Parts: sequence; structure tokens; C-alpha cells
Amino acid sequence: MPNLEFLEKADARMPVSRRWDVSPVALVKTVRDSSAWQGWRMETVHARRPLAERSFQNGDSFILDFGEELVGKLKLTLRSKENYNDSPVRLRLIFAEFPLEIAERNRKYTGTLSRAWIQDEVITLDDMPQTYTLPRVYAMRYLFVEVMATPNRLVFEDIRFTARSAVRDFVPPLPEFSPEETELDRAAQRTLRNCMQGVLLDGPKRDRRLWLGDLRLEAQVNAATFRRFDIIERSIYLLAAFPQEDGRIPACVFDRPEPYDSRTFISDYAFLFADLLWFHYEQTGNEKLLKEMYPLAAKQFELFRNYYRNGVAQEELPAWNFIDWCDGLNRMTACEGCYIFGLRKLAKIARRLKKYSDAKQFEQEAGFLSNELIRQKFDPKKGLFVSGKKNQISCASQIWMVLAGVVTDADARTLLDKMEHCRNILKPVTPYLHHHLLEAYRIAGEKDKMLRHLHNYWGSMLKKGMNVFPEVFVEENERLTPYGTDPRINSACHAWSCAPAYFLRMK
Amino acid sequence: MPNLEFLEKADARMPVSRRWDVSPVALVKTVRDSSAWQGWRMETVHARRPLAERSFQNGDSFILDFGEELVGKLKLTLRSKENYNDSPVRLRLIFAEFPLEIAERNRKYTGTLSRAWIQDEVITLDDMPQTYTLPRVYAMRYLFVEVMATPNRLVFEDIRFTARSAVRDFVPPLPEFSPEETELDRAAQRTLRNCMQGVLLDGPKRDRRLWLGDLRLEAQVNAATFRRFDIIERSIYLLAAFPQEDGRIPACVFDRPEPYDSRTFISDYAFLFADLLWFHYEQTGNEKLLKEMYPLAAKQFELFRNYYRNGVAQEELPAWNFIDWCDGLNRMTACEGCYIFGLRKLAKIARRLKKYSDAKQFEQEAGFLSNELIRQKFDPKKGLFVSGKKNQISCASQIWMVLAGVVTDADARTLLDKMEHCRNILKPVTPYLHHHLLEAYRIAGEKDKMLRHLHNYWGSMLKKGMNVFPEVFVEENERLTPYGTDPRINSACHAWSCAPAYFLRMK
Repeated sequence: MPNLEFLEKADARMPVSRRWDVSPVALVKTVRDSSAWQGWRMETVHARRPLAERSFQNGDSFILDFGEELVGKLKLTLRSKENYNDSPVRLRLIFAEFPLEIAERNRKYTGTLSRAWIQDEVITLDDMPQTYTLPRVYAMRYLFVEVMATPNRLVFEDIRFTARSAVRDFVPPLPEFSPEETELDRAAQRTLRNCMQGVLLDGPKRDRRLWLGDLRLEAQVNAATFRRFDIIERSIYLLAAFPQEDGRIPACVFDRPEPYDSRTFISDYAFLFADLLWFHYEQTGNEKLLKEMYPLAAKQFELFRNYYRNGVAQEELPAWNFIDWCDGLNRMTACEGCYIFGLRKLAKIARRLKKYSDAKQFEQEAGFLSNELIRQKFDPKKGLFVSGKKNQISCASQIWMVLAGVVTDADARTLLDKMEHCRNILKPVTPYLHHHLLEAYRIAGEKDKMLRHLHNYWGSMLKKGMNVFPEVFVEENERLTPYGTDPRINSACHAWSCAPAYFLRMK
Repeated sequence: MPNLEFLEKADARMPVSRRWDVSPVALVKTVRDSSAWQGWRMETVHARRPLAERSFQNGDSFILDFGEELVGKLKLTLRSKENYNDSPVRLRLIFAEFPLEIAERNRKYTGTLSRAWIQDEVITLDDMPQTYTLPRVYAMRYLFVEVMATPNRLVFEDIRFTARSAVRDFVPPLPEFSPEETELDRAAQRTLRNCMQGVLLDGPKRDRRLWLGDLRLEAQVNAATFRRFDIIERSIYLLAAFPQEDGRIPACVFDRPEPYDSRTFISDYAFLFADLLWFHYEQTGNEKLLKEMYPLAAKQFELFRNYYRNGVAQEELPAWNFIDWCDGLNRMTACEGCYIFGLRKLAKIARRLKKYSDAKQFEQEAGFLSNELIRQKFDPKKGLFVSGKKNQISCASQIWMVLAGVVTDADARTLLDKMEHCRNILKPVTPYLHHHLLEAYRIAGEKDKMLRHLHNYWGSMLKKGMNVFPEVFVEENERLTPYGTDPRINSACHAWSCAPAYFLRMK
């Protein structure tokens, strides 16, 4: 049974959507370009006449660029040129975040997630002239329109997109930002803005729900930019409203049509809940929320404490352990890093709530586990932490050892340096883990490396033509998708990727 | 410029839609059957469980039968069985008047009219549970549903169709009707009911507009059944509101989104306008309407009078001459029949309005033309009227000679008998002309033949499984379509086919 008090509090923090109309900025076409993301870019078509002065017949198609990725609804105003509407108008529409979605529109879908996520529609309109707003919300920058049937030449009097988000205006860049940094900041803010809907969505095109792990990163960027703490609190209350019977916090909840639980649990996300709470408290001073959430945050560690009784777990935790989308990644050391990291934040919460004996116990446990990890999982020859029975070496393990404070200061810097220069190391796949890499550099006092990595990784995305940051970005494998073999299913605007707006302000 | 006074009067007679919810009566499947219309019939599937107790996965499909053809909107209430809605739901829907539309749904469309008339949709619904009403109005008896994508097993809690028409209840059959006559009457009334929307539509699936020629027949059946003279008057005012610059009355107007002219003219329809007015006057006594419309009705003859100055036109009238959908039909004699028939009614109107000299002139002209037709176009050897330079023999010519009073009484009966027994005669294609054939029998005093033909022609439609009467019915060519080669484009419920409810009451 959901916690109705928490649901009420979530309701009370429902953000009001800002809405604004956006007109297309250009008529474009897809062009093959090996230097562009996935081999496709949009090129402006130098049309002499505005769209409303042109007309289209059966089989014609065109692509509009709205200038930036937006989330909202499409409104079409149509008339037939001769105003003799002998039959309905039938259109095929594709809403695209990136050029490949339009350029490869006719390929058979080969993803493992539902085909229904692909944002395409066939609509039939009986009466002309007509202004029609499609009922669904889309995330898009580009709109492909194909005239499948029209009684005579069809005129698009007006096509506009009514964008929506809890926030509309971007926070200004810092004066010292370089032009690239300004652009990185803008794309990061746009990514976060597009995800700030009824809750903090992970992605407005696909998934469209609230994830605990994503929320934690979004809360950081939000604090550095929009500072809409009402939405953060709403999201926290929603997650907390649906504990499982044994007390597990859901990794994810749905907010529509009515909030409901996903019955999904991710161990590392659960351990990080304490950090989300502590960060929010530091930003807002909301001690009441800390108090309300403390039992739930503490419960997550209780549930798994026994697995770490010998200092290091003997097997993978019996849950979904996420850390990163990365085939073959052993997550045991990184998960324990999350456990220690969260536990240290839980201790801070306990201390703030004057639960001193709790606090002390958590601190001691964190200290014990840290020492055991060094003793059992640090390979002194390589100078790196290993994970699992096969002693796998991954960036994920090193990052979480630094974040968890298992190694600190000069040791942390040495570890990150070894990691950087290790050849056969499993690298991060998602911007989610790259965000934690930036944080590890920051905590270790390696601000130059932090900025260098930020410019390298997120800067590459800009150079590839992105204006928002995606769910997955691996420069060497642009068509990589975690869901089968069809990159159209990938989310190009994913809130866990909005790191730059936060870290650029940490200089 | 439209006549704004007439438009206002049309507005004032806008019917209020009756609405009623209809649930499906059976789960059915398409079955090949050479004795059924177009080789397909629906067979009831003996499902043990009601639809709402079943669930469906990707790729599943089913067909619902709503028991009779209805016009209106579809409302779906959906939920996913596990209430875990990981992704949107995508459905393919086909709304069908007759089984072939579903059975042959995947054939490439080969009609000449717009593909947009085919009533199929792909819809994507983001939130579950959800009740969704599709925005368009459909004409259908059968609904095909294919689950293209669902996050888990999908449950159709409720599927209902909100039917709409200006009339809801059928007029009771006469006590003396046989069971087949009762069924013929019911199907005819259903056909008319489905077309009684904002105006008298020709067909609710395809075309969806007001035609002058169809209106005239509908007005007859309406007088014998629903007696909704407001809609007849609204339709007359709409047509009269859009005369062309030279005074031609449009053959057709559109009523949505705002009334506008089709710029279509059909000579024979224009001549028959006078008959529509006179019939309406006889039913209602509305002399004011006669007075308002008299100049427009008279104008139609003025425009073409010169072509008949020698008694018979020397060439086809320079206009669309309809008479029937029939390849190769020579329409000259039949058109002149319409001219005379209309002129005689115009004379009656003139007399009623005390325009005696007009009336006399029209009567004299009708008499002159009748004599000339007998002199120039009657083949005494064959005993039949011919048409055009090649002396074509068609049923259309004979029918209109009887209706126009060119031949009467025993001569008319002889002519119809010759027609019946002539081997190489062009036969009627559409129920529109079959309606006129019934009327010719009636006028000639051949009520038995009238009823025999009614039972033969419309009775065959019932035997083929129809519950409404179609635009085109030729028993020997079930897939005949006036628009290319794809019978899916045909209208199965076409108001010009609702004759039985009128003629059965003429016994």
C-alpha cells in the first residue's frame, strides 16, 4: 500500500508547466556525413518561399528543424490550395531527436524495447481548413512530414510546437566560460529542462519516468541552475511513497495517469538515496524531509548489511546492480563503493537528527568496509582495485573507491592516474558513470582532469552536432544501443547526462 | 458569393445529433464463402470468456461485430494486465462496413479515389489505464483490432461505439409486411438513418457530403419514415445558397467545417430540383420555400432551353450528365427525360404561385418535347427509345421516358415490358437508377413488377449479408467499383439506396 501522506505531499509539489510556442527555423534535409553523429546531419535547404507559400501533393515530404530539442505538442494548421476538399488528408509524421531517426525511417525496427516508443504517427484529418493538435507529447528537434494523401495541393499554413517544461529560461553562463563551455552549459541545461515535466523524467522521448539514480544527478545540476527544489521534493516523496513490503525503495516510479510503483529495485540506487537526501538538505536546509526519509534511507543498508559482514560480499548482491550499461561489467566492488558512500551520508543525516549512536555505528561500518576493500580488493602490483572472482579491472571500481572515500587525497589521485593509463580496463559507457568520474576527479582535487574529461567527452557530443546530451555516448561506437541493434530507440536527451552545467560551475 | 439569408436558414435547421452507446455483440472472424458478398462473411467465434476477461499480446488481433452498421466514434478503455506500463500501447484499427475491408486489409490499395477514405488508423496511447475516444467519425459494423505493441498482456476493459444520427428510432413496419419486407424496410431505414447527420450525406464512410440527386430520393424515403423535414429544408437551403455566377445550382455542397460550394454541376440533378421542391411542398405545405426557390429552379431550365429548341438536343449537354454510374451509357435521352420531368413539376410550382403564364409555357414546352422525343427517338420496330447518334438502347432511357410522362398508361406498361425483355440493353448499375425504375413501375401502374424488382434487387443484397444498402450493387460483378479496381473504397451504406422503406409503403 502506498504511503498516502507522501503521495499528498508529492501532489502539493506538482509543478505548473510553462508553455511556449516555437516555430520551425529551417527547412532541412538529411545528408550523409561521416564526421557527423551516426553518419547523418541535417543541411538547410535554401527554399525561396516560406512553407505557408508553398504547396504539396501526394508523396511529397519535407523536414523542419525547430532549432533545438523541445518537449511538447504539435499543432498543424492546414488547408487545401483549391479549398475543394474532396477527401480527407492523410499525413505521416516522424518526430526526431536526431537525424538518423528520419534518415533511416524505413528500416525494419530491430530494437528489444517496444516499437511503440518510436515517435511516428499516421494521421487522417477530415475537414480543411483545420487546426489540429496531436494528443501525444513528443520530444523532438526535427519533424518529418509526408503527404500520404491530399485532395489537391496541400498548404501548411502554420506548423508550430507548443513546448512545455516546469522551467523555460536558462540560467546565464558564468562570465569566465569559454564559448565551448557556454555551449556545453546550454546543452546540459536544455537536457535537464526537457526532463523537468510532472516529475524529473529520465528521458522525454523514451522511458518517460522517474528513476532514483537519475534523480540524484539531476538534483545536483538543478541546484547549480534552475533551483526548482519543489520538483526534487515531489520526486523524493513519490519514490518514498511506494516502498516494497520488505522496505526496499523503488528504483523507479511512474507518475501517469496516477502515480504507481514499478516494482523495480536497484541496489546501488537504493544506497545512494541517503546522498540524495543529504545533498538536498545542504541546498535547502529542509530538515523535516530528512526526518521523514531517514528510516527508509537507513532500511536500504539494513537489507544488505549481512552480505558485507566479512568486509567484502562473497557474491553479487541478489538484486539488479546497475552502476553502468556495460556488457560484462563485474559490479561487486563498485556496488560496495556505493554502499559505503551512501552509508557515510546516512551517518551525516543521523548526526544532524541527533541520532548519535546510529551515526557512530554507520561511520564505523564504513571505516571497516573501506579497510577490508583495500585489504581484499586492491591489487598493489597494478595499483588498482579489482572486482569479482576473476579480479576484473574497470573504471567503475576505481571511481566508486574514490567517491566512497576508500582512498583519498594523494592515493585517490594516484589511483585515478593508474586508471587513466591502464590499457585493458573496462571503460564507462553511459554519461551516468562519466558523471561519477567527473565527481571522482573533483573529490580527489583533480579539477584540471575533471575539466579535461568534461571537454573531451561532452565536447565530442557537441562536435557531433548534438544540442542535448544522450543516454549513451561511446565515441567509437556511435550506433551502440543497450536495447538490441536499432539506435532509433536510444534517448538523445537523457537527464543523467546533464553534468556539464554542474561541473562547469565547480571550477 | 453565397446567399447569406439561405445560409442562416440552413443554420437554423441544423439537427441535434442523437447519441447512443453500442457494445459489440460478437467476436467474429472472416471466413471465405462463395455465397457471401464478395466471397467473405463473418463467422461468430465461440469464445468462452468475454473480451474484458481475456488479454492480448504483441501480434494478437481480433474482430468485433457491433450487430449493425453505425456512424459515430469509438471509445476504448484499456489496461495492461500487470499494470506495469513500461512502454506505450500501439494498436492498428480498421473500421469496416463489410467483411472484405478486413479480410483483404493488407492488399495494396488500387482505387482511384483517395486512400485516405479507407478507415484505418494506427494509434499510440502513452498511459494505462486509459479511456480514449478517437477524434474521427467512422461508419462501421466491424472493428478489427491488432495489438502492434504492448508492454505486457493488454486487456480491453471496454470497447464501445457512440453512434450518432439526427434520428435514432426506426419507424415500425406495416402490419402486412412479410418477414423479408420487414428486413428490407429496416435495412433501408438504417441506411437513411446513418446518412442523416449534419446534412443528408450520400455516404457516411466515403464522400460524406450533400448531393442534390441523392437528396431528392432521401426526401422521398424520409417522408415515408422519419419525416424530419427540417433536415430536408436545411439541405435545400444549403444547395440554394451557392448558385454559380450564371445561376447553376451546385450538384453538391460540403457542410464542414463551414458550408462551402463544391463547384460541381450535374445537369440532370439540376432539372430534378423542381421535383424535390414540389414533393416537399406536397408533404409539408411549405409554400414560402417554393416561393424562395422558384427563380433558382426555373433558372436551371433557362440555362439549357436552347439545346432543346429542335425538340431533341443535337449533342450531349455541356455539363456533367449523370443518370447512372455506367460505362458507355449514352445519357442524352434520359437527360431530356429529366428535363421534361422537372419542367412539369416546375409548372405545378408556377401554378401554385399563381404564375399562370409561366406554368402554361412550361406545360407547352414539356408537351412539345415529349412529342418530339417520340417522333425522333422512339424506335417503333423495337418498341424502345434510343439515345445518341448510335441509337443506344438502355434501361435509363426507358425509365426516364416513363417518369417524364412521354409515354403513359398502357404505352408505359408496354415500354417497360419491352425493356424487360430486351436482351442487349444497358442495365442499371446503381441503386439510384434502380430507385427510378421502381418509380417508373409505380407510375405506370405496375405495382407487382415494382415489388418483384424491389424483392429481386434489394432482396439479393440482404441474402448476401448486407444490413445497409450500398452505393453500387451489380449481382454479377460483386467487386465492381466506379473508382478503379479496389472495392474497399465502395460505400456500403449510401442514402440513394434506401428505396425499400418508401416503395414498400406504396403498396
